[in-house]
Amino acid sequence: MAEETIASVLVGETAGVLPLPKLAREGDRLEDVDTPALILDLDAFEDNLRSMQALAETHGVALRPHGKAHKCPEIALRQVSLGARGICCQKVSEAVPFVRAGLTDILISNEVVGRQKLELLARLASRARLTVCVDHPKALEALSAALDAQHSCVDVLVEVDIGQKRCGVQTHEQAVALADLTLRLPNVRFAGVQAYHGSIQHTRSFDERQRAARQGAAAAAGFVDALRQAGYACEVVTGGGTGTALFDAASGVFTELQPGSYAFMDGDYGAMEWGEVIGLQHALFLWSTVISTPAPGRVVLDAGLKSTTSESGLPHVFGHPGLRCTALNDEHCIVAVDVPQASPALGEKLRLVPSHCDPTFNLHDELVGVRKGVVEAVWPISARGLSR
Amino acid sequence: MAEETIASVLVGETAGVLPLPKLAREGDRLEDVDTPALILDLDAFEDNLRSMQALAETHGVALRPHGKAHKCPEIALRQVSLGARGICCQKVSEAVPFVRAGLTDILISNEVVGRQKLELLARLASRARLTVCVDHPKALEALSAALDAQHSCVDVLVEVDIGQKRCGVQTHEQAVALADLTLRLPNVRFAGVQAYHGSIQHTRSFDERQRAARQGAAAAAGFVDALRQAGYACEVVTGGGTGTALFDAASGVFTELQPGSYAFMDGDYGAMEWGEVIGLQHALFLWSTVISTPAPGRVVLDAGLKSTTSESGLPHVFGHPGLRCTALNDEHCIVAVDVPQASPALGEKLRLVPSHCDPTFNLHDELVGVRKGVVEAVWPISARGLSR
Repeated sequence: MAEETIASVLVGETAGVLPLPKLAREGDRLEDVDTPALILDLDAFEDNLRSMQALAETHGVALRPHGKAHKCPEIALRQVSLGARGICCQKVSEAVPFVRAGLTDILISNEVVGRQKLELLARLASRARLTVCVDHPKALEALSAALDAQHSCVDVLVEVDIGQKRCGVQTHEQAVALADLTLRLPNVRFAGVQAYHGSIQHTRSFDERQRAARQGAAAAAGFVDALRQAGYACEVVTGGGTGTALFDAASGVFTELQPGSYAFMDGDYGAMEWGEVIGLQHALFLWSTVISTPAPGRVVLDAGLKSTTSESGLPHVFGHPGLRCTALNDEHCIVAVDVPQASPALGEKLRLVPSHCDPTFNLHDELVGVRKGVVEAVWPISARGLSR
Repeated sequence: MAEETIASVLVGETAGVLPLPKLAREGDRLEDVDTPALILDLDAFEDNLRSMQALAETHGVALRPHGKAHKCPEIALRQVSLGARGICCQKVSEAVPFVRAGLTDILISNEVVGRQKLELLARLASRARLTVCVDHPKALEALSAALDAQHSCVDVLVEVDIGQKRCGVQTHEQAVALADLTLRLPNVRFAGVQAYHGSIQHTRSFDERQRAARQGAAAAAGFVDALRQAGYACEVVTGGGTGTALFDAASGVFTELQPGSYAFMDGDYGAMEWGEVIGLQHALFLWSTVISTPAPGRVVLDAGLKSTTSESGLPHVFGHPGLRCTALNDEHCIVAVDVPQASPALGEKLRLVPSHCDPTFNLHDELVGVRKGVVEAVWPISARGLSR
């Protein structure tokens, strides 16, 4: 509709007159990058990618990193080049820029319901190898019909609820009934199950998380056995996030892991107990500027709820133990200065560690890749805002 | 950098092959609009605009609605056409699409610190009448120097802290010192004070909010008197949000109000006590689809933290008292069905009321204007993501 609005007509006329400056260019010093900006420490990021790939290979499971975490095709291409089987997307529209970028194997790790979504999915399926989750016969029938209209086909995973209480069939009988239905419908092929337990990913205690992951894996095994007894082999048993990847990889149940945050290590994951099995580092930062030093013990930064989110807690100031975020407003972060000599100066730039990386990526159009203090690349976050 | 990335090179090659469907077109029935989508009930929205404009005019104060709430020039143009003096923006880059759209009087209701921001501000100042807040002599000196380089000028408001404990000078002496400094610096003119108290906007009790607003207005009056005694008349005393507008308009202290949410009435403001002075209605909704009905008492919607936010609480399902949002995940909203017969069907679409409108607008590229169930307009949210 843009061309039909007063605003954008005027944009068209005057866009050249008021260009927005580029966020950053290759070769810029980080100190010179304007704020707020989402920055990626490329050394830490690449170490994280290698660590999770090695974990998967050690246990002989496939790695299918989740694209919803970063929404950035440049990152997905690097994950696949290191050995990832493909990626996950949480929405059909989210998958489009990844397919455009050359990703050829995508799991839509979610239920897909609605005419427009199914039509887009069917078009995508003729350009990439797609797998889709289902948890209801009507959804499976609508999926098959939409694919038939486009003469395309997909693999289907029955989503099973192993304790998250979100989507997914509740009983073995429901799972078998959906597998049966795939045999009676065109353009869909039964490939296995998705068994994802999101709520235990963030359990802080290593032991509690391990116990919960084992219970989840046992529940997943129950569904797999019931399907096997009904004559359905599960080629794919996919699930596991960053928090349980360690345990799911070793479970003997999962054939594929779908972690996303591991590449970035946000504040919430960083606060968890990890043991010594895998070493992941903070790689994602929100670059911000001190815009006010109004009173002793308080400074204010220029990054707020429109640059990161707080549902998993407030961000923390990286490398400054004397500074503590106390509030996020729309465009401000209020910081308490607990150690007077640590008080930053007006105009000083600080790195914040986002508490939750996925929705933080979704607030930014570009990611600034930095190595040793110098900008090496600026990558578009092409799937930002694509939630349909 | 887009043209230098693998991803976007491929976008260029194949963009035509995989077009994303339009969100909506004029004349579409709301039922046919894909989800998640941000929709605006135009009748309620227009009533809200008229109500706040009438409140301001009744008390002889100017209305300067906050553009950070909606980031949509089409909305700002309608606010000004009803009598608003201009708008506020919270960031310099946020103001750019509003200036492009023809808005000519903009208050940057925030401190502006940093070379790139000041350069952009100075360029904008030659195309629109800008007013800027300051709370530090160094920031004022840098502002003056940047304007001088572009041969442009702005009005300056001293931001004063009337209790929010965010930005703003703390003492009358600091306020007077900044006013003095404007006389010694080129390209900046002292115009008054900004006295905004964000944290009391959301106090639920009418009486408590009124008491807090009166304390804030008294503190603002103290700064104004101190400046007057030093020889500085405050043409502008600006502040007040949706929550305190009623009281600030009648205070005799403020010359200008800067509410934003009043046009939309999110869930947080909707839950407050309003008395009978002004009637504001929910006008902003998140349109979502039931994608899973996994178990009795639970359904799952396709709109999550990437379509709305939870820092002010979970959204609520509009017009369905038997349905209650219990969790927001990245792309899911889990809904408890308290009244079995109220359980929506798979594929049914529901309206959610966002708890906080400002960051919700910042997640969407387009706003779908609906009247009596039919799409009347689709407006670009042109300042979405512009936080620099």
